[in-house]
Amino acid sequence: MSELRQDPLVNRWVIIAEERASRPSAFGHGESPSTLAAECPFCPGHERETCSEVLAVREPGTAPDTPGWRVRVVPNKFPALRDEVPDPVPCSDLYRVLAGRGVHEVIVEGSGHTRSISELERPLVREVFEVYHERIATLARVTDLPLTTGVIIKNVGRPAGASIDHCHSQLIAPPVVPVNLAAELHMVADWHARHGESRFDVLIATERATGVRIVHEGQHIVALCPYAPRFPYETWLLPTAPVSHFEDTTSATRAELADVVRDILSGMEADLGHPPYNYVLHSAPFRDAAPSYRWRVEILPRVTRVAGFEQATGLYINPISPERSAAALREHLRRR
Amino acid sequence: MSELRQDPLVNRWVIIAEERASRPSAFGHGESPSTLAAECPFCPGHERETCSEVLAVREPGTAPDTPGWRVRVVPNKFPALRDEVPDPVPCSDLYRVLAGRGVHEVIVEGSGHTRSISELERPLVREVFEVYHERIATLARVTDLPLTTGVIIKNVGRPAGASIDHCHSQLIAPPVVPVNLAAELHMVADWHARHGESRFDVLIATERATGVRIVHEGQHIVALCPYAPRFPYETWLLPTAPVSHFEDTTSATRAELADVVRDILSGMEADLGHPPYNYVLHSAPFRDAAPSYRWRVEILPRVTRVAGFEQATGLYINPISPERSAAALREHLRRR
Repeated sequence: MSELRQDPLVNRWVIIAEERASRPSAFGHGESPSTLAAECPFCPGHERETCSEVLAVREPGTAPDTPGWRVRVVPNKFPALRDEVPDPVPCSDLYRVLAGRGVHEVIVEGSGHTRSISELERPLVREVFEVYHERIATLARVTDLPLTTGVIIKNVGRPAGASIDHCHSQLIAPPVVPVNLAAELHMVADWHARHGESRFDVLIATERATGVRIVHEGQHIVALCPYAPRFPYETWLLPTAPVSHFEDTTSATRAELADVVRDILSGMEADLGHPPYNYVLHSAPFRDAAPSYRWRVEILPRVTRVAGFEQATGLYINPISPERSAAALREHLRRR
Repeated sequence: MSELRQDPLVNRWVIIAEERASRPSAFGHGESPSTLAAECPFCPGHERETCSEVLAVREPGTAPDTPGWRVRVVPNKFPALRDEVPDPVPCSDLYRVLAGRGVHEVIVEGSGHTRSISELERPLVREVFEVYHERIATLARVTDLPLTTGVIIKNVGRPAGASIDHCHSQLIAPPVVPVNLAAELHMVADWHARHGESRFDVLIATERATGVRIVHEGQHIVALCPYAPRFPYETWLLPTAPVSHFEDTTSATRAELADVVRDILSGMEADLGHPPYNYVLHSAPFRDAAPSYRWRVEILPRVTRVAGFEQATGLYINPISPERSAAALREHLRRR
C-alpha cells in the first residue's frame, strides 16, 4: 500500500509508504556503519540483489543484470511509488487522497564503490547526466501512469538521506506536482502576465550584471549562488537558453552541466571537508507548456542542519553569505 | 551583520547570519561528541558562560546568573537575530532584504544534564510551559522591535539540530511572518470567508468523530496524529477552546499541554528508541486578529531523514501511517 495524502491545513502532500519501513536504514537515527564494497548491493557482481535493470550504459556484449556496466538504472527495491497500487478509500470530504502511482528508480553511478560523484572521471559523469536525460525523456512520454514530472535527487552521506554509500541518485515521478514546483510555476506565470518576460531570465541577467554571486558562465550553463540561499555554498545551475524542460536540452548543454556540477562539488568538498550533500534536478511538468520556467540543478551542501526552526517555519538560517560562497567557488573553478 | 533575504523565485526568507559560523557545531556534519556535564555551559555553576538571564524560575533568595534555578532564559550567544542591526544595503529592486532585527533566546530546562524533556519531573515540565507563555506574552507587548510572532522550537539530538545536549528550547521572534504560518493564515481566512467557520475547528471535529487518529482528548487539549504527517508518530496538540494566540491560553490549558507533551514523548521514545526529535509551538502573529487560527504544538520525531527529495519538492515520504502511530500512542497514554 502506498498512498498520497494532502494536509488539509497547508496543502502539503505526503506519501504514506509503509513498505519503506522495511528498508535497511528506515529508522537509522543512530549512524549506521558504512557498507563495505563486498556487501554493497550496488557493486558489480551483486546485480541480483537489486531489481532488474531498466537501462544501463555497459560494455558491448555484456548481458543485462551482470557486470560490465558503468551506469545502471533499476527500480527502487523499497519504492515510495509504483505502477500498480489499489485505489485508496477516501475517509472524509476534508481530506484528499490518491493512489501512490508513479515511478521510483535508482541510478547507480559508476561500478566503483565511490561515495561522491566528484570522484568519478569526467566522461563517466557526463554519461550519468545522459542517463538522467534519457530516463526523464522516456517518462515524459508515458501515458498509462499519471506522472506529473521527473525529479532527480542525489543524497550523499547519512545526514543528507543516503542509506547506501555507493554513488547513486534517485528518480521520482509522482502523480502530483510537488508543492515547491507548483509555487514556482504560479510565480513565474504571474510575473510573466504582469511584466511580459520570464522572471528566471530577469534573475539571470541581474546576476550576470552584478557578478558577485556568479560561479560559472559558459556557453550553455550559468552557475550562481542564489541571493537567499538556505545552505553555505548552495549553488544553482541554470541554462543560458530559455528551456523549461530538461528533456529538451542539448547534449552539449548536458556535457557542460556535468562538468560544472563535478567541479563545483570538488571545490565545495575541498573547502567544507566532504560534507553530506544533495543535488536536485528540477524541470517543468511533463506535457505542460511553461514558457517562463527554466529547468535547474540545485546543489545543497548539508553543512548546517535542518533543525526544528527551518522545519517548522520555512525560514532558514545560513551562516555564510552567497557572495562569500561564490567567491570561493569561482576561485576553485579558475584553478582548473 | 545579520540580514533577512527573500528568494525572488519562491518568496522564501533566509537569515544570513555570518556570526553563527563561530558556533561550536556550526559545521558539525561529523557527529560531535556528547558534552559532559562538567563542560556543559547550561549546567549550574556555568552561568557566566551564557549571556545574562532575562528570566528564571529559581529558589527564593538566589541571585540571577548563579545556581538555584530550575528554568532559565538567556539570549542566544550566537543569535540569528538581535535587537541592534545596521540597515542592509539593497542590491537590486528584484531582491527584498531586511535587517536581522528580532529576538533569539535559549530556555534551559532543568538544572540536571538531561537530554529529553520527557525525563524531567511533571511539575518541572509545567514550569517550562509557563516560561514559554511568559516570554511569548512579554514579546507580544514589545513595540520597539518589528517582532511578528514568537516561535518556540525544541531540538533534541544532533540530527534534529541540537548543538548542546542539555535539555533546552529556543524562542525566535522574527521580523517577518514565517512563510509556513503565512500560508496557514491565508488558508484559514479564505476558508472562513467561504464557509463561515474555522477550518481548524472543522478538522478537530472531524478527527473527534472518526477517532482513529486521536491520541488524547482532555478538557483543554486534543492531541492527534494529522491525516498527512511528514514523520512517523508526528503528533499535533491543539486547544479545545477557539484560541488563536498562545499568549491568551489559561494556566490550566498549559498544565494539561505540558503533561500530554511529556507523556506522548515518553511513549514515542519507548517505541522508537529515543530518536532525535523536534517540537514546535506555533501561534498567530502578535497583535493580528486571526479568529479562525488555532495555536498548536507539533511533535516531529526525526526518525526518517529530510533527504534531498523532501528538501527539494516539499513532498514527504512517511513509512508509518498516522492511524498506526495514533493507536500506539493511545495505548501508551492509557497505561499511565
